[in-house]
Amino acid sequence: MNVRRPMATVAELMRPRSVAIVGASEDPGKFGGRILRTLLEQGFPGDIHPISSARREVLGRRAWPSVADVPAPVDLAIMAIPREHVAGVVGQCAEAGVRGAIIVTSRFSDAGDEGAALERELVATANAHGMRILGPNCIGIVSPANGFALCPSPVLLGRRVLEGHIGLVSQSGAIMGTLMDRARSGGIGFSHCVSVGNQADIDVCEVVEFFVEDEATRVICSYLEGLRGLRAGTAFLAAAERAQRAGKPWLMVKAGRTEAGAAAAFSHTASLAGSQAAFEAACRERGIVLLDDPEAMMLLAAGMSRFPARKVDGVALLSPSGGGCALGADRLSDIGVPLPAPSASTAGTLRTMYPTALLNPIDIGAANDGAAMSYTTRTHELLLADEAIDLAFTVITAAPDITRFAKMAAEGVEKSGKPAIMALLPGEAAEGARQALLQRGILHTQTLDTAIRAIRGWREWSAAMRFAPAARPPQLMRRTALPSGALGEQETKQLLAAYGIPVNRSVFVAGAAGLRQAADGLAPPYVLKIVSADIVHKSDVGGVAVGLGSVGELESAARTMLERIAAGAPGARIQGFSLQEQASGELELLLGAKHDEVFGPMILIGAGGIYAESLADTVLATAPVSEARARGMLSRLRIAGRFPGTRGRPAVDVAAAAQAVSRLSWLAADGGASLRELDINPLLVGRAGAGCVAVDARALLAASSNGAGSAIREEVQ
Amino acid sequence: MNVRRPMATVAELMRPRSVAIVGASEDPGKFGGRILRTLLEQGFPGDIHPISSARREVLGRRAWPSVADVPAPVDLAIMAIPREHVAGVVGQCAEAGVRGAIIVTSRFSDAGDEGAALERELVATANAHGMRILGPNCIGIVSPANGFALCPSPVLLGRRVLEGHIGLVSQSGAIMGTLMDRARSGGIGFSHCVSVGNQADIDVCEVVEFFVEDEATRVICSYLEGLRGLRAGTAFLAAAERAQRAGKPWLMVKAGRTEAGAAAAFSHTASLAGSQAAFEAACRERGIVLLDDPEAMMLLAAGMSRFPARKVDGVALLSPSGGGCALGADRLSDIGVPLPAPSASTAGTLRTMYPTALLNPIDIGAANDGAAMSYTTRTHELLLADEAIDLAFTVITAAPDITRFAKMAAEGVEKSGKPAIMALLPGEAAEGARQALLQRGILHTQTLDTAIRAIRGWREWSAAMRFAPAARPPQLMRRTALPSGALGEQETKQLLAAYGIPVNRSVFVAGAAGLRQAADGLAPPYVLKIVSADIVHKSDVGGVAVGLGSVGELESAARTMLERIAAGAPGARIQGFSLQEQASGELELLLGAKHDEVFGPMILIGAGGIYAESLADTVLATAPVSEARARGMLSRLRIAGRFPGTRGRPAVDVAAAAQAVSRLSWLAADGGASLRELDINPLLVGRAGAGCVAVDARALLAASSNGAGSAIREEVQ
Repeated sequence: MNVRRPMATVAELMRPRSVAIVGASEDPGKFGGRILRTLLEQGFPGDIHPISSARREVLGRRAWPSVADVPAPVDLAIMAIPREHVAGVVGQCAEAGVRGAIIVTSRFSDAGDEGAALERELVATANAHGMRILGPNCIGIVSPANGFALCPSPVLLGRRVLEGHIGLVSQSGAIMGTLMDRARSGGIGFSHCVSVGNQADIDVCEVVEFFVEDEATRVICSYLEGLRGLRAGTAFLAAAERAQRAGKPWLMVKAGRTEAGAAAAFSHTASLAGSQAAFEAACRERGIVLLDDPEAMMLLAAGMSRFPARKVDGVALLSPSGGGCALGADRLSDIGVPLPAPSASTAGTLRTMYPTALLNPIDIGAANDGAAMSYTTRTHELLLADEAIDLAFTVITAAPDITRFAKMAAEGVEKSGKPAIMALLPGEAAEGARQALLQRGILHTQTLDTAIRAIRGWREWSAAMRFAPAARPPQLMRRTALPSGALGEQETKQLLAAYGIPVNRSVFVAGAAGLRQAADGLAPPYVLKIVSADIVHKSDVGGVAVGLGSVGELESAARTMLERIAAGAPGARIQGFSLQEQASGELELLLGAKHDEVFGPMILIGAGGIYAESLADTVLATAPVSEARARGMLSRLRIAGRFPGTRGRPAVDVAAAAQAVSRLSWLAADGGASLRELDINPLLVGRAGAGCVAVDARALLAASSNGAGSAIREEVQ
Repeated sequence: MNVRRPMATVAELMRPRSVAIVGASEDPGKFGGRILRTLLEQGFPGDIHPISSARREVLGRRAWPSVADVPAPVDLAIMAIPREHVAGVVGQCAEAGVRGAIIVTSRFSDAGDEGAALERELVATANAHGMRILGPNCIGIVSPANGFALCPSPVLLGRRVLEGHIGLVSQSGAIMGTLMDRARSGGIGFSHCVSVGNQADIDVCEVVEFFVEDEATRVICSYLEGLRGLRAGTAFLAAAERAQRAGKPWLMVKAGRTEAGAAAAFSHTASLAGSQAAFEAACRERGIVLLDDPEAMMLLAAGMSRFPARKVDGVALLSPSGGGCALGADRLSDIGVPLPAPSASTAGTLRTMYPTALLNPIDIGAANDGAAMSYTTRTHELLLADEAIDLAFTVITAAPDITRFAKMAAEGVEKSGKPAIMALLPGEAAEGARQALLQRGILHTQTLDTAIRAIRGWREWSAAMRFAPAARPPQLMRRTALPSGALGEQETKQLLAAYGIPVNRSVFVAGAAGLRQAADGLAPPYVLKIVSADIVHKSDVGGVAVGLGSVGELESAARTMLERIAAGAPGARIQGFSLQEQASGELELLLGAKHDEVFGPMILIGAGGIYAESLADTVLATAPVSEARARGMLSRLRIAGRFPGTRGRPAVDVAAAAQAVSRLSWLAADGGASLRELDINPLLVGRAGAGCVAVDARALLAASSNGAGSAIREEVQ
């Protein structure tokens, strides 16, 4: 068959009418044995074709020597065979018109350059016939929604993955197995689970795109170590934006966040790390929730799939004990979760049951029915009915009857129609409670940590969904012709001014004689800086003078400056002076723009001044950002504590700073790859209403065809 | 019986020969029913006396109308009776010579002032006869080491608390029940569990003191919400120091860390919060490990009790999968845990099994035996035998045979004689593995979070145990006569200089005419500051001049300064000038000393300069601190990133800063309660070897009998 077929899609591969298992066996100790056994246990309605060089029947099914021998079309083939046979079998499959080949076998690009070359050949062979490759080094597909599994994971033997609305895509087969099993134990089900392994052809992003379209999938879960290929960043951002537009939450455990983690991750996959900070920024802005923990991801996914589109902000904390309330309140405080006071009418009703206690958190054991806990249902129901409460967090400690408490709490939650997460802190004594919650489909876990991660994730996603994408301000023109080369202070400030970012006024003056005239257009006090390409640290040689109140002081300062430099830096060639209006403000910020090779234009903000570097107090975002998002970025800085005003100092103009950040982000977006980097340091932010001003700045743009950049480089120090 | 008996001790109460249950019942739905039933189930060897107003026999035991009617001595009585009967029963017990009364009943000091008054009367009545009170509002004692339980917790019915070497003291009965049950499910046992409730008489500290002496107890666990009483801080520090000297780890879950948590905690107990920051500092320095999580506390306690005195620093990370390695490595990185490379000889042996993979973390699935995992035992054994490795962290993901993997891993760990913590990430598929680890006594948990908290805690304790207590430097005299009142810059600097803290030289000069002579003894450049009690912000009115290079400049600056002040602050009374040598340095620190009402003298360090407050980059410690501990404090500052030198700036003199911190801490220790507060801001720290200097400082000392402090207050701005 040499007919050129259209390229298969993931959606097509997820609905096979017939499958082939290459290397089928009856031995569950072997990959091929587990795959066939699991497939039979799941009850696949289509045709099953075992392929075996040795046997003509496997587990009661007619077997064939090769895919080419199967007398009917095969949609999907899976192979767990020695590496040296893979290329041949892939070729046979492609020739036979198979639409997708799942390669379980490892030691391709995960094992070095030679394996990577082999892998590229496999993909080329397959794609030439429209066939797609999943893997290599993967564990295939488990699709409860479509009733089939082609997967060698031992966790499936004798145990069925539950059907639900979570789509899972994982780079690691072991982690996919772990998640499927952990989820089943918690009563959590999946639409489809897809293991992409080395991502030689089908990658995480393509599977996510399928999940976005798939009706059975409400929430997307992913285990990721790194993206693959040069266009991966763009594809990733596009997939994230599609998921966000579709309102489908995308949760992620990203391994390799740290240097040690990345070393471990890249020792067994063939992925690009990219910049972790850029990756996290890209995720945060697009509502991708980074969980860091497999169990927390499954718990949150279960919640979001049972309560689609539910946003979470305010939480009610309940416990049968004061100790449970105190522990829970500390943990929620740590992650900034508000415990809203119930409305007056809710509070009025609750007060009849709890005459003296706090009403959120609420110690159900402190009710005036004493140890009977008979208000448990009503308390959950009442609090959840309150407008300010989106979710109940119930910390279950030892109690007179833990099972009864859990059942009553579940009943209240069910009546409310809102979600709850229950943390079961005892051990065996809470087993009855766990079973009760499992049966009722109430979200639960056995550690505070897991619950807290899930609550934080739900709130992060809810907050991200409120952000609208940045729209270009009407007064802001798109610039297509940016200057190029290394830009000095003067030129960079011109560029900033063109984007509506305030700069302090400054003039280049070739000699001291021109200062008087130049000062005419500026308001004192003045700043005078020497301009010399030979002087790197101007202030060290007396090349900066500030606070000059008059033209007289200015001229006197210029003379002193030239004398000092003649003595301190005798060989320096002096080009002239930069005469500036002296800006004043309350707070110094650092603003930067750069181009990330994976995620494109980025913007960075941070604390300015001398501690800028050692504090590492920075926030990164993909550009452009709206002013609202810029405010959000500013609020995440550590120095945000200074914004509202502190002891003796006034509040600062956060609105002006946010506008500057947003406008710089449009500059970054317009500049694209040609804007290598641009730094404003400092942006001086004044008191509220007083605006902000860029006091120093420099930039580096890729040389474009129209020349080698400007001749003025006076301020690149 | 009116014979005055000696006051009973906790040790005495923990070994009763006879017990009475007041309010005994056959109904396990009642407190008195659960207490008796549990006591009988535990097989107490002493005499059991049910007390019941209605029955003459309870559960086959002869019952008495009151404690007074029991014809034999009663050592310990427990009462779960209506509040209005408690005082009468306590009186009867005291009269009858009972040594300890456990009061389960609540609504005493936990319910307001009236209850608190009642509670004080109970203690007075008891103590007058040498009887001690445990509670009220507690769940009593469970003592597997001494074979008895007087405890109404429902988690005990039909389930035995395991015997082990962990002493648990808890303020919350519900949390104690939770911990006992969770521990049993994890195969973890206790020497004794004591619930102290309202701590009316016996408090957490007294129980800890008992645990320190108790041979059956190797590790102390505590759930604490707050200390009680004015001397509680002193008692707490003393108990902590005794535990530290005895080498017994003290682990703690402290609820009420946050505002919301404290509100929840204090709505149901009667404790003082004290300063949370001071509390945490006191704990950290004395090796008390704050865990924030009940399960993590039990896991760590189990590890420490099975491996007494074992210190943990370097960790080996193992997993059957690369994904498990990557996840684990990220988490360990987050908490700064090193993954040391194995020694050359260990590495040589491992290389034969793992030709290309990383050796720490180690992906056992990447061994050259492929999926067989037959190297699991040997790999654990080899890594743990390495000198740099103190603990193995095994992240168990899905694997071909999870149970076999766990057994083999356990075998390797057992051979090594070192501890391991295993995180079982799958669900039911890992149940066999969990059972295997439980049987073998290998520490395990089902979440990464719990394991990570335990590892962090073990390392924190190990680090704290390396610190020696601060010894007064031989050249440092103890000062007993400190000045008093509000001290200005000059006086405070004199005090600092007396404690060996470098200050920049400065002279008070009454008028401009004296400047020339005063400058003779100082080196330029000079700083000149106006001295006037009427001027709060000197620089705002031109009252500070810096960088004055000569006496001429100095005199000129003084004239200008007086003119400006005459214009800007016309009414200000001028006392004179402060003439100082101008100091220079690389980094500004803030050093403070104060007296905490609960924990005594404290020292605080932080980033100096304009961001000092908004960054909240501070570290607190109880004084005195050794120079080594001062270095540790400095290293915990965010700006510690600046110490080794950053782009273009040299390393700073951390040794000199640590010496200044330690010396200020001795000043704080000597000053005691009379030193209300002392601030050095900034301490200017020079480049390495260049020392540091206190540039500005002020202090407030309690007025002593010898006068109202100094007349010189020139610098209190």
